[in-house]
Parts: sequence; C-alpha cells; structure tokens
Amino acid sequence: MKRITLLLVAVLMLAGIITFTAPASLHADDSATPIFVTKIPPGYRDWRLISVSHEAGNLNSIGAVLGNDVAIQAYREGKLPYPDGAIIAALHYGHVPSAENNKVFGQAQSFVAGPPTNIQFMVKDSTKYAATGGWGFATFIDGKPATAASMKSCFPCHNQVKASDLVFTHYAP
Amino acid sequence: MKRITLLLVAVLMLAGIITFTAPASLHADDSATPIFVTKIPPGYRDWRLISVSHEAGNLNSIGAVLGNDVAIQAYREGKLPYPDGAIIAALHYGHVPSAENNKVFGQAQSFVAGPPTNIQFMVKDSTKYAATGGWGFATFIDGKPATAASMKSCFPCHNQVKASDLVFTHYAP
Repeated sequence: MKRITLLLVAVLMLAGIITFTAPASLHADDSATPIFVTKIPPGYRDWRLISVSHEAGNLNSIGAVLGNDVAIQAYREGKLPYPDGAIIAALHYGHVPSAENNKVFGQAQSFVAGPPTNIQFMVKDSTKYAATGGWGFATFIDGKPATAASMKSCFPCHNQVKASDLVFTHYAP
Repeated sequence: MKRITLLLVAVLMLAGIITFTAPASLHADDSATPIFVTKIPPGYRDWRLISVSHEAGNLNSIGAVLGNDVAIQAYREGKLPYPDGAIIAALHYGHVPSAENNKVFGQAQSFVAGPPTNIQFMVKDSTKYAATGGWGFATFIDGKPATAASMKSCFPCHNQVKASDLVFTHYAP
C-alpha cells in the first residue's frame, strides 16, 4: 500500500502539481468534473515507439512513449492538432542500475527499466473530452485507474504546451 | 567529423573495451575475421518495444530496444536461445535535459531523447554468424556502418552474458 501511495505521489509530481482537492468537488453529480479514461486501451504494448524519456529526482523513472497507428501517422506527418482516435501511451518503469551490465562494462554506468510504476494514456476525442483540450487523460497503477482527484492536475499541466497540442513528447527519429 | 569520432569512441565504450587492433588483422582475406551486418534491417523503426535503457557517464545516452516479430515472440515466451531470424535493434539518442518540460515541472528533472547517436543491431543466424555465438552485430552512425575494427569488441563483450544468449536487454512488461 505504501508503494502505491508513493507511486501516486510520483504521478502527481510528474504533472508538476500536487493539488489538495476538497472532497466536495468529487461528487459524481458534479457536471464540471472532467471525464477521465478508466479502461486501458487494448493492444497498447504492441504500439510503435514515439520516444523515450527519463525523469530524475523523486520520480526516478525511465519510460517509453508509444503511439497507436493514428498517433504515429500524425507524429510522422507533423500533423497538429492530433486527429480524433490518436492515443499516446507512456510506459513508466523505475530507473534502476543494472548490476549485470555494470559488471561487464567495468563501471557503474548502466540503468535499465525496473518494475513498472505506471502507464499513462492520452486519448484524443475532441467531442468527448472537449472540456480538457480534446484529450482524455488516464493513469493506471498496477492495472487500476488512479483516483479522479489525482487526475485533476493532468489537463492544467499539459495545457501549458498548447503549441504541440498539449503533448510533451516529441518524435525520436 | 569530430562528432563522428566521439560517437565511435562512445560505441567502443559501450562495449566496455577499446581495442587497438593492428591494421594487419583487418585484411579482407583473413578468414578468421568475424562477419558483421552492414545493411540496416528494413522496417526496424516500426518494430515493437522490448525495453528502454540509459547509459550514464561518457556515453550519456538514452535508448529504446526494439525487436522484430521473431524476437518479440521469443522474448514474450522466454524462448532461449533466440531462434534464427530474430533481430534486436537498439536506438540510441543523446540523453539531454528538456528545458521545455523542466519549465512546466518547475524543476530540472526531465531528460529526453536528443539527436541520434547510433543504431545497433543483433541479427540471429546460427549458421552465418556461427563464429560469434550465432549473432551478427551491427552499429550504424548517421546511417553508415561502423568500421570492422570498432566492431571486434561486440562479441567478446556480449559473450559475457551467455545465460541470456548474449543479449543484455530484458523484456519490460
């Protein structure tokens, strides 16, 4: 449980903002509550690579960012905004030293993907997710969606990179 | 040219060994010379993700390791040794800080894929590459194969991880 809590804090820190939301704002009948993605898009582990990333500090994660066919095509064509149907997946793992590799290399230099920390998705649907820039956001930890409260920071943070249609990751050739 | 030289040194350091090979050993008629892969396997950029990696120190690279269908299937089934036809690609990029992300996060924590440094391949063909554990090795820098001299360190280094059929990278879920 402690691990899950730590991961949740990490997710919030990824968004750059830890919000302390009053429980009152979480009422299911609050029509202003953003809609979040609560089901893992099928087949995401077979999607193609967009790029890789490393978050140092407390997050201490290494990740791969993958895209479904719609997303990959838009990336490669430089098409903005991303068309409806585009889904971007960020697979995050612990950034852990590899004793096996370092032994062979003869020095401490190698970091590999440790246990998964979370998987995040951005799903483009300009109608369904109109309130959050056309993107539905999702974070899954151990296969379960993060709380709605923790997800409230996604849009304000991503909304700071409007020039790339709210997407941080650039395509790696 | 200086950049290429630096990258080449980086490749050698990745292997953990910088060998100083006498030109005499590079004669084309030297039948003991290992065979290296000199053509980039087509379509590799569309292959599926095996894992991600980060080499600190002088290499300072972040990478994605991808596999063709044969390699991915073997990884997922835990099949060792890898069957003939398996190809593993390591796409390496500079490990560079992202000013754009750090500005949003409010702290220096984010590293992304910078310019490509090299692409490396391992091609399994137990007959053709029998002299090097059944694997053909390749390094491409700016689309061009690295020198045969620089490639001589691949096999001795990879041969130190016999338990995983000479493959360093483990599958990330």
